[in-house]
Amino acid sequence: MFNTVTIVGVGLISGSFALALKDHGLAKKVIGVSRSGNSAKRALELGIIDEIGTIEEAVPVSDLIYVAIPVDATIPVMQQIMNLVKAPQIVVDAGSTKAALCASMATHPQRSRFVATHPMWGTEFSGPEAAVHKAFAGRACVICEKEKSDQEAVKVIENVYETIGMRMVYMGAEAHDVHAAYISHISHITSFALANTVLEKEKEEDAIFQLAGGGFESTVRLAKSSASMWVPIFQQNKEHVLDVLNEHISQLRKFKACLEKDNYEYMEELIENANKIRKILH
Amino acid sequence: MFNTVTIVGVGLISGSFALALKDHGLAKKVIGVSRSGNSAKRALELGIIDEIGTIEEAVPVSDLIYVAIPVDATIPVMQQIMNLVKAPQIVVDAGSTKAALCASMATHPQRSRFVATHPMWGTEFSGPEAAVHKAFAGRACVICEKEKSDQEAVKVIENVYETIGMRMVYMGAEAHDVHAAYISHISHITSFALANTVLEKEKEEDAIFQLAGGGFESTVRLAKSSASMWVPIFQQNKEHVLDVLNEHISQLRKFKACLEKDNYEYMEELIENANKIRKILH
Repeated sequence: MFNTVTIVGVGLISGSFALALKDHGLAKKVIGVSRSGNSAKRALELGIIDEIGTIEEAVPVSDLIYVAIPVDATIPVMQQIMNLVKAPQIVVDAGSTKAALCASMATHPQRSRFVATHPMWGTEFSGPEAAVHKAFAGRACVICEKEKSDQEAVKVIENVYETIGMRMVYMGAEAHDVHAAYISHISHITSFALANTVLEKEKEEDAIFQLAGGGFESTVRLAKSSASMWVPIFQQNKEHVLDVLNEHISQLRKFKACLEKDNYEYMEELIENANKIRKILH
Repeated sequence: MFNTVTIVGVGLISGSFALALKDHGLAKKVIGVSRSGNSAKRALELGIIDEIGTIEEAVPVSDLIYVAIPVDATIPVMQQIMNLVKAPQIVVDAGSTKAALCASMATHPQRSRFVATHPMWGTEFSGPEAAVHKAFAGRACVICEKEKSDQEAVKVIENVYETIGMRMVYMGAEAHDVHAAYISHISHITSFALANTVLEKEKEEDAIFQLAGGGFESTVRLAKSSASMWVPIFQQNKEHVLDVLNEHISQLRKFKACLEKDNYEYMEELIENANKIRKILH
């Protein structure tokens, strides 16, 4: 049980994390730090946080500082936080990219107080209103560069994530970013591009609205995700994302060639290969 | 209430339709026709159908014949059925393409007994085990070429679909196929291609399994869909699917160019445009 936890960012991830801490009796008091006064006020009204604070006020009085803001803002904000921290305080980030942040932390004198994590949960919504109870449960949580963190601090954080229902996975920051490009970032680009395709071609929005069934909804759901969160992710993970995006375009071109050449046997092979995903997802 | 309904095909759509008829007290007896003896037996065991029959046996004794089989098989099977039918019997198909079938029916002497429909519901699963109760509810059902069907027959079928919870939408067969390419067919191609991308690049299947979160699952869910159902759909709707696929590839290339040129302002615009899908989907 932490006496005081500060969440930096009061949105989908940090807000849901704060709710999970409270639901499991893991935090007495949660302070919320946000660049947006409105968001902080809303988080307070929603009972996600108990107080609004600034980094300078909140960090020194906190046992745990949990950072979940757009990944471009994370790097400077984390420096600011880490400069205020000393043992046994723990700083955790929840960002979708890890290599740039971990590199920026590498030589910080308090590096061992920092635990780099990526809880693999999210929705297409953002802001304090998007925070939900029982988030994270049943999903994987990646810890990167475990060996660079204080081992007691890692145990505390593992215990928190496990208590809220997550499975721990360990990998290097670079390996994390490669896998994240495959498993999360490309899905978002595909979904944004698919939404733009349909919006471009299907000028009759009424037809989309009337006809869109479950298949369409599930493939474009992620296209509702916010630009302020996703542009910095794609930027920081540019190389791996480009690599996967090139492969994806070439896979789509195979379908195109099948249609153009009326090669339906090969199309059947392509689909049967795609069906192998059944073994992996349920 | 129908005395006897024959479902041709005993899979996801026809099976769920049979269950919906029974759940709403709309059919006394359901006969199942299937090329696969095993599927028919399984449908009988699952209580989806009451009897197994052949087209020759079942059609003459049925008030309603409901056809939901792969769209390439539909055309010859529908000829066979229509040659056995007379008023007041009604034949309905539920296929995902409409232009080719409607063209093949255009000059049939019993054309007016046929109602061309597309209930916009489905899942990625197939076979009698995939049939579920309460399918279809809340979704749109397209009726094509309403004016070519007997108006009493149309009313009966509208009443059935509305009773099981569907909203009716009317359009020509060609217009249907254009919209279906945008709203359903391209989502499936994207999802198949995305699964192939990840399977190709991510040789460590274990990593996919461990990390895949909700976003990935929702975009690749459709990649579990069966080739025998989807190849004929893409083939029949080739021109419209190619048109949308070309647009989709060019939308993905815009994201690629943004990354290659570090043009993150334009990427933000692309994402904000994609976000407009929020207005349409909930």
